Amino acid sequence: MRILLSNDDGYFAPGLAHLAETLSSIAEITVVAPERDRSGASNSLTLDRPLSLHKSHNGFYYVNGTPTDCVHLAVTGMLDDLPDMVVSGINDGANMGDDTIYSGTVAAATEGFLLGIPSIAVSLVSASNGNFSTAANVTLDIVKGFIQKKFHVPILLNVNVPDIPQEQLQGLEVTRLGRRHKAESVIKSVSPRGETVYWVGAAGAVQDAGEGTDFFTVQNNRVSVTPLQIDLTRYDQMGYLKDWLGLSC
Amino acid sequence: MRILLSNDDGYFAPGLAHLAETLSSIAEITVVAPERDRSGASNSLTLDRPLSLHKSHNGFYYVNGTPTDCVHLAVTGMLDDLPDMVVSGINDGANMGDDTIYSGTVAAATEGFLLGIPSIAVSLVSASNGNFSTAANVTLDIVKGFIQKKFHVPILLNVNVPDIPQEQLQGLEVTRLGRRHKAESVIKSVSPRGETVYWVGAAGAVQDAGEGTDFFTVQNNRVSVTPLQIDLTRYDQMGYLKDWLGLSC
Amino acid sequence: MRILLSNDDGYFAPGLAHLAETLSSIAEITVVAPERDRSGASNSLTLDRPLSLHKSHNGFYYVNGTPTDCVHLAVTGMLDDLPDMVVSGINDGANMGDDTIYSGTVAAATEGFLLGIPSIAVSLVSASNGNFSTAANVTLDIVKGFIQKKFHVPILLNVNVPDIPQEQLQGLEVTRLGRRHKAESVIKSVSPRGETVYWVGAAGAVQDAGEGTDFFTVQNNRVSVTPLQIDLTRYDQMGYLKDWLGLSC
Amino acid sequence: MRILLSNDDGYFAPGLAHLAETLSSIAEITVVAPERDRSGASNSLTLDRPLSLHKSHNGFYYVNGTPTDCVHLAVTGMLDDLPDMVVSGINDGANMGDDTIYSGTVAAATEGFLLGIPSIAVSLVSASNGNFSTAANVTLDIVKGFIQKKFHVPILLNVNVPDIPQEQLQGLEVTRLGRRHKAESVIKSVSPRGETVYWVGAAGAVQDAGEGTDFFTVQNNRVSVTPLQIDLTRYDQMGYLKDWLGLSC
Repeated sequence: MRILLSNDDGYFAPGLAHLAETLSSIAEITVVAPERDRSGASNSLTLDRPLSLHKSHNGFYYVNGTPTDCVHLAVTGMLDDLPDMVVSGINDGANMGDDTIYSGTVAAATEGFLLGIPSIAVSLVSASNGNFSTAANVTLDIVKGFIQKKFHVPILLNVNVPDIPQEQLQGLEVTRLGRRHKAESVIKSVSPRGETVYWVGAAGAVQDAGEGTDFFTVQNNRVSVTPLQIDLTRYDQMGYLKDWLGLSC
Repeated sequence: MRILLSNDDGYFAPGLAHLAETLSSIAEITVVAPERDRSGASNSLTLDRPLSLHKSHNGFYYVNGTPTDCVHLAVTGMLDDLPDMVVSGINDGANMGDDTIYSGTVAAATEGFLLGIPSIAVSLVSASNGNFSTAANVTLDIVKGFIQKKFHVPILLNVNVPDIPQEQLQGLEVTRLGRRHKAESVIKSVSPRGETVYWVGAAGAVQDAGEGTDFFTVQNNRVSVTPLQIDLTRYDQMGYLKDWLGLSC
Repeated sequence: MRILLSNDDGYFAPGLAHLAETLSSIAEITVVAPERDRSGASNSLTLDRPLSLHKSHNGFYYVNGTPTDCVHLAVTGMLDDLPDMVVSGINDGANMGDDTIYSGTVAAATEGFLLGIPSIAVSLVSASNGNFSTAANVTLDIVKGFIQKKFHVPILLNVNVPDIPQEQLQGLEVTRLGRRHKAESVIKSVSPRGETVYWVGAAGAVQDAGEGTDFFTVQNNRVSVTPLQIDLTRYDQMGYLKDWLGLSC
Repeated sequence: MRILLSNDDGYFAPGLAHLAETLSSIAEITVVAPERDRSGASNSLTLDRPLSLHKSHNGFYYVNGTPTDCVHLAVTGMLDDLPDMVVSGINDGANMGDDTIYSGTVAAATEGFLLGIPSIAVSLVSASNGNFSTAANVTLDIVKGFIQKKFHVPILLNVNVPDIPQEQLQGLEVTRLGRRHKAESVIKSVSPRGETVYWVGAAGAVQDAGEGTDFFTVQNNRVSVTPLQIDLTRYDQMGYLKDWLGLSC
């Protein structure tokens, strides 16, 4: 089995190293990740310049681009054989709820999925305790499961793992993405040269974190697994919109 | 009425100027757009440095960040009054099908929506004829409609306009996003210093461009209006995934 | 006469517009400048990606690169005829003393000089009063002088103009670069995500600002003109260094 | 003795690792280097955003900025004690002649010098053979020499080492910088999206590579040591310029 690994924290990130080491027990691993931290990169793709690919001392490849660039380049130009799976992570921090659309970790997996490959994004929620091995082992189990019984449908999974020792995990749950209240305001600051600058502020407080959501599940020390899709069409609003636009008759 | 305009082609782009001029007939316009072309930026958000805001000679503001940064900064920190609407565009090129997830134009509107504001992304399909005024007038009509009868639900619209004179338009249709085949391979090149570099290649050919899709609609000289949502959860796969993970019993 | 204009504040900067308008009375002007503010870019040259060239509405060209890139690209690949002169500026702020080595304004002129073209960098000192027309007219006079009697030696001039109305200027002086004390410390700040960040602080106070220096001259309301060279060899230290290394005998 | 190391190839570069290991035998080493390859960065300084500082697994610090930023931040804000010396390198490739003004390697040393610290830039000429240990040992000798007998003048040295085994070195020479002919033209290419792009071309052929120059010395398998200064004033042209401007009488 061949697995392509990527992330958005950069090729040198501890979470990526944990994942590579753990998964190498069951698969041939190739790592292609950004040369620097690209957290918040979402699905951005580099169109105005070419990308460069280099190999690090530890055998990981790095690219001067986004997480999406990395997977795109690896799959469509660099690897001789298509990987059987793309795994992105372990992200140093959660990717749940609305935050998912900003996430470079999820985006790397999404690119794999768009290129026809089963893909998984893995994040360690509130990574202050550093239980990357918990998340790595959870990922290992999911990948093993995939080897044993293939999915019959295309697959893009968003996995969030509580930052606790593995023996404290209360199992695993299939979830929907929760929702947040809108983001906090930007925070003004002044540069030493007198210019006003603005930091993007914190994400909003959780709004929908009820049972069945990723927020709730992780809060209860369970692993959250959310199946994702990439069709942004709001089907349930199409009829209403037709009416509104006067197109119904 | 107050409208916040943004785009991903940069504050100096002709499509933005057309939109600002046309919409200024019915609303108070503020433009906050990226300082340079950020096509392909998706929903990327700048977290590792603060943003700067400057005013151009023509009264447009520009930000050293992504389309998402622009709307985020304008709404949560710069504008005294919340805009009634966010309009992003007119993009120089289509944003249809799977491409939507890479689009900075759509992302700017998405950020408006996430911040609770009705938002519209407008793109001119294959902009080689430069019929920006067609797209500007279509947008004007939609915004006028919004003034007359408010939506009763949150709204995020992705509008793609054929690049033809307005009198040749065959109306407007509510569509779903089409699908593409997977992207073309990266294109290898060699730098003058002998390094291999890789350009991201073209998008894939259309795969699902049947009736009801944005691709089909625009192909038939009609304006495509797709309502979007931002919940990436694949609800219809949750049961299957539970089974697969052995969680059903 | 053909003049290539560039700067480091970006193609949209007021100082550049003033210069272009004023010099267009005596020469054919082409402007090739950075797409965004690149103050502090020094002589940096972009080697790891290709450059793009676009034309703005006002006829100015802009490049997604440094000031040095702009002049390099214009002279070695874009212009059909070699310019007779490169003029860089008008910078919004002084470029005197040690600061010269960080300056993108000076760097653009340096690149012209290295490519065999007489070159001038022009800066408006402490540009808070906005007397760009003073600096533009001073530049016009120097360029006129150059037309009338050619230099017999290669030329690279660093011109700093006080920010006062032209009639208050007390003439023009050939100067040497002054010196500053070492820079102020970086200024610590904390990002909203709790990361410590560091702003580069202010330049040091002037150390050598005596008669004959650019600092002194501008302080006395005179235009400072410093001829520059690009040979960094410290000739007067070569003998001492030979001794020190035990190479003398 | 405390030595601050930096470079422009990035904190992960082999030349830097060689240098750190070799110099750690005689000094306490701190490495602060760019997070990614910044070759060609010259003295550029980041003024429009703050810098971040991180520690890598190997104990090296990296900064999301230029070589100049790295030394500036380390000396003026991060280190508790001023280093006794700044060493930049070992660069993967020569920094000789006019190229010196574009060099980020030399710039890092220049920043140390400007901050009052004896500084050395070290480059391995045409590094295809990878004799970094030759360059590391040459640097060690120079630093040892510095410990034994202090310089009585400020010092900024540009050292270029032939890429040969140490036993083949024919000694060391104090040199002046040579000169090149002007650079080759930019090289046009076309992106997959049909846009013309321009790569900066090769440096010009050597023009002044006679005896006494860095080019000549390295060509003859000797180490080139050039003392540098940062005063760009062209003193020998001041009189001529005064005449030319009509200021002499």
